[in-house]
Formats: sequence, structure tokens, C-alpha cells
Amino acid sequence: MSDTENPLFIGVDIGGTNIRSGVVSPDGTIMKRLSQHTLTHEGKDRTIERLLALIQRSIDEYPPGTIKGIGIGAAGAIDIKRGVIVTSPNIPGFKQVALRDIVFERFSIPAVIDNDANAAAYGEFWAGSGKGITSLIVITLGTGVGGGIILDGLIWHGSGGMAGEIGHMTIVPDGRRCRCGNQGCLEAYASATAIVERAKELIRHSPDTTLLDMIAHDGIEGLTSLEIFHAALNRNQLACEIFREMGKYLGVAIASLLNILNPEMVILGGQLSGAWDLFHPTMEAEVTQRVFDVVAKGMRIVPAGLGDDAGIIGAGGIAAQEFS
Amino acid sequence: MSDTENPLFIGVDIGGTNIRSGVVSPDGTIMKRLSQHTLTHEGKDRTIERLLALIQRSIDEYPPGTIKGIGIGAAGAIDIKRGVIVTSPNIPGFKQVALRDIVFERFSIPAVIDNDANAAAYGEFWAGSGKGITSLIVITLGTGVGGGIILDGLIWHGSGGMAGEIGHMTIVPDGRRCRCGNQGCLEAYASATAIVERAKELIRHSPDTTLLDMIAHDGIEGLTSLEIFHAALNRNQLACEIFREMGKYLGVAIASLLNILNPEMVILGGQLSGAWDLFHPTMEAEVTQRVFDVVAKGMRIVPAGLGDDAGIIGAGGIAAQEFS
Repeated sequence: MSDTENPLFIGVDIGGTNIRSGVVSPDGTIMKRLSQHTLTHEGKDRTIERLLALIQRSIDEYPPGTIKGIGIGAAGAIDIKRGVIVTSPNIPGFKQVALRDIVFERFSIPAVIDNDANAAAYGEFWAGSGKGITSLIVITLGTGVGGGIILDGLIWHGSGGMAGEIGHMTIVPDGRRCRCGNQGCLEAYASATAIVERAKELIRHSPDTTLLDMIAHDGIEGLTSLEIFHAALNRNQLACEIFREMGKYLGVAIASLLNILNPEMVILGGQLSGAWDLFHPTMEAEVTQRVFDVVAKGMRIVPAGLGDDAGIIGAGGIAAQEFS
Repeated sequence: MSDTENPLFIGVDIGGTNIRSGVVSPDGTIMKRLSQHTLTHEGKDRTIERLLALIQRSIDEYPPGTIKGIGIGAAGAIDIKRGVIVTSPNIPGFKQVALRDIVFERFSIPAVIDNDANAAAYGEFWAGSGKGITSLIVITLGTGVGGGIILDGLIWHGSGGMAGEIGHMTIVPDGRRCRCGNQGCLEAYASATAIVERAKELIRHSPDTTLLDMIAHDGIEGLTSLEIFHAALNRNQLACEIFREMGKYLGVAIASLLNILNPEMVILGGQLSGAWDLFHPTMEAEVTQRVFDVVAKGMRIVPAGLGDDAGIIGAGGIAAQEFS
């Protein structure tokens, strides 16, 4: 196998729990997966060593020169131009880590670092639900709400590398308190955290105990979004209403994004996107009501196609774009 | 004067009342202005003839070959790729007018058509408050609220040419009715129309008659935003509160735009931007509260620099960019 005929890229997704990597082909297929605990409590240097060891193992699987670039996605504030992780909420010790240069010095292979939500968005654009589309927005509905914006085939980073904080659009000016300290952010309405908080609130204030009866094995404090999801699948009215409400506010946010940016597609990923059937009707109604017909025309809102692999594939894709 | 050393461009701003044009130099200065009534009631063909006569007069002022391109801005839905005004709210008869080709056929000078808000945004970017900045958002606070988005030095048109409808971001999901038929749009909170509507509402429902006493020469129905502005300058409390409230909601919208797009600058133009001192404090407070520190850092919100000329200069600038 000649290395110039089959260039490959490594995509890495650094999470708070696991570092996951994949060797990615130029068509966006993961050829070889590896995973490693992040173990952030062992300190920054050992986390970096584990990351480098993971990359080394991937490189060693192929003839020298096959891997043409390494892309790394991490949560937090990333200085893309300098290739530095400025801060990362999931990895407390990571402050001003010049990861791009560290990786290049070790392997003599060029590297690129980006925000994990941008990497996931790029993955969906390159090889997922957005394949063939040039302008799209990816909203990741997880513990929080992340976002990535692709315009004319490129990630839009903004002037300071902070674009795409879709979870912190204001949806209700005097609305729910968000984890960011602010009020009325989308994240306070359409994240797993928000779903759980809303369920607790409804359980505490509603005479309807059916939801509590269905889910409370560990009492209300141990409540998870997955339990609420299952209760909704079992047609619990309170649980269903929580997802309908989420759909409404998500629809408000998407409508604003469409009127602002007029993309071809909006892709919804993250764990909560699995509840598509539960929130989709109210989301779509809100979008239809609020978006100009000419903007809505031809535009599609679809579920993500790559699941948890979007970050790995996207990081590999960014490397492929940079170093092909 | 050699025409290759001093290329010039014509910028045209088609409004509902007047068609205004200027010969624009490569540094964004208007050399020669002309104006003509639009007279839409005389029909589409005569409006087009008046537009062409205006352009002809500008061309005739210079040696042949001096004018290298013609840029035209018009309100409404513009098909930029085809150079067609699809519909224009200000000019009822303009439907599917292939203006780019009409202009080129008449003068053999290349032309480009864009939305008037985009043209104004490009003007501010090219020769106004945004000179030297590559990524910015212009919000025009007029009868309605318009917007234009410049990313990396180019107008972001969106996939269907409809990007920048910032006036129709949802600010309050269950909020005020907007002219577009929707609820809670920015335009329903931060336009001249909104200011007047809000004043009428407050006058009708408030025991405070001081505002009415100050302004109502023609009764409440003839109320204008300029009268409310003057009442606020004269420290009428109700009028001041209207602008403070406007500032708050404008701040909510700007905060969302900043978290989504992370531009270097937001520029506020249009007639209402003259009330800067009245709405700026509440606007800034809202932005500071809602925007991530790292996004706010280095970002500036400033008044527009070109006033009513932004559209003409910007249209000329788009032509200069396309045809230089």
C-alpha cells in the first residue's frame, strides 16, 4: 500500500471521561478506533502523555508517511490560529496547552486543534447528514447545547474563535437561569440538564404523580433525562409535555438562526436528538410560524448521521482539509 | 484623466420614494450625487426608465470607460446570482425584474444587484465605521429593522440570498405582534414603528399624560418616532423609558448575534441610531450580562458612520469589489 495513494488522517476527540481516536480515510470512514481514559485527576502532563500514546499506536499501525495530518477536538476555548487549548471545562488542568506544537514535535506530522462542537459539525458536513451541503448549522443537544456553523464549506470560527455558541442564544429574556450564569439561554430549555430540571420542577409543583411513579427508583434527585425519555415513550403526559416544550423553544432558536444566516440545513445531534419524534412536531410548528417562506423553502432540519463518531470523523476531516 | 488610473463606480439606492445614486471612487468617496423620484405608481417600466436615465447622467459626466461597474441596492428579495429583483415591498410593481441584465444591455457596463441592507452594511464595512474590520454585523434601525452580515470581508448572503434578516430574530417568543405576521421579532421592539406603537400603548394605559401633552399636536394617531425622540431629549420620563426598553431588547438580540457569530464589531445605523444616548446604557448592560467575556473582549458596538449614504457607497463598493 503506497502512502501517497492512500493518505490517512487521525481524528481525536478529547472528552472529560475518554480520549477517543480514529484513523480516518479521505472519504470520512473510521478505519481504526482507539480509546483511552482521560483520567484528568492524574494531571495535565499525564493526560497529554496518554493522548500522545494513543496517537502513537494509531501511527504504528500503518507504513511510515501514511498519516498526513492529525486533527484534535476538545471542549472549551481553543485558540485555533496558535493551536492552543486555552481552557477546557472537561479537563480542569488544561490551561494554555500548546497541543498542536506538542503533537508536531513528537510525531513530525502536522496537527490542527479545534473546538469539539466545531469538529462534530465538520464531521456531519463532511461525511454525515450534511454531505453535499455547503452551508449548515449543527446543534448538539447534550448535557449542554453546543453548536457549529459551516459556511461555504468552512467552519465559521468568528474573530476570536468563539462562534457557534448557539446554546447561549437568549430565547426568553427573563427566562430560566442557565449554567453559564445568564438567563433564558437555549441551553436552559433544550439540554439534558434542562429536561431534568424541568421535570423536577413539574413533579414538585404538579398534583400529577404519574411521572414520579414511573421513574423515581432513586428519588427525585437521581432523576436522569433517559428516564424522562422512557417515560415519554410510555406516553406519560408530563414527560411528553416536557419534550413538546423543549421542541417549542428549540424551534424559536432555529427560526432565528435561519432568519439570520439562511443556511441550507440544520442538523440536530447529541443524546437528546434521539427524542426527535417527541420534540419534532412542536419544533417544526414554531419554525414554520417564524421563518420567512423564502428562507424555509428548500431548507431542511434533520437528525445527525454520525452519532458519537461525529467528533472523531470531523477532527480527521479538518486535518484532511488542512493537510491534503 | 485616464480611465484606467481612476476607475469609478456607480452606486444606486432604490427606495420607495427616491432613487439616489452616486459616482463612487475606489476609496469609498461619493464624487457626484443624483436623485430622482421613484414614482412607483407610474408603473414598473417607467421606474426602470428613470433609473436608467439617472445612471446615464452619471456616466455622461466622465470620459468613456471611466465607470467600471454599477452596483444597485433595493429592498426586498433579490436573487443575487441571477441579478434579479424578485419582489420589493417598496416598489409594488417590481416582480422578477432582471435589472442586472437590463443595465448591462443599456450601458455595456457590468452591474450587480443586492439587498439594500446588505449594500448599507458593505458601505459601513468598506468606508464607514467598520473600515479595517473584516467581520461585522450592521443593524439598521429604521421604519423596520434591517441587517447585513460581513464575514471575512464578504457579504454573507446565505444559501437563498436571504441572510441578515436580523429584524426577524425572535426576542420574546410570546411577545409583541410584528408587521411580518409573527410574534416577538426584534423589529417589534427596536424600530421606529415599534417606538410609536409602544408610546401609543403607554399613553392609552398610563395615568401619566405628560408625554401626550408634549407631543400630541395632531392627536395620538399622528404620533411620530421623532416626536417621541424629542420628548425624551426633553427628559419626558415615559419617552425615556421607551428608549431604555428598546435598548434592553436590542441588547438581547446583539448578545445572541455575538454568541452565534463572534464578529469584531456591531454597527447600528438607521434613523433610530440617532437616539444612541437614550438606548445605549440599557443595551450595553444587557450585552455585558449575556455575552461570554471572551466573545465581548475586543468587540465593539458603534454607531454607523455614513448615515443615509451607506447604501449608495456600499452599492458602489460591491461593484468595486466585483469589477476592479
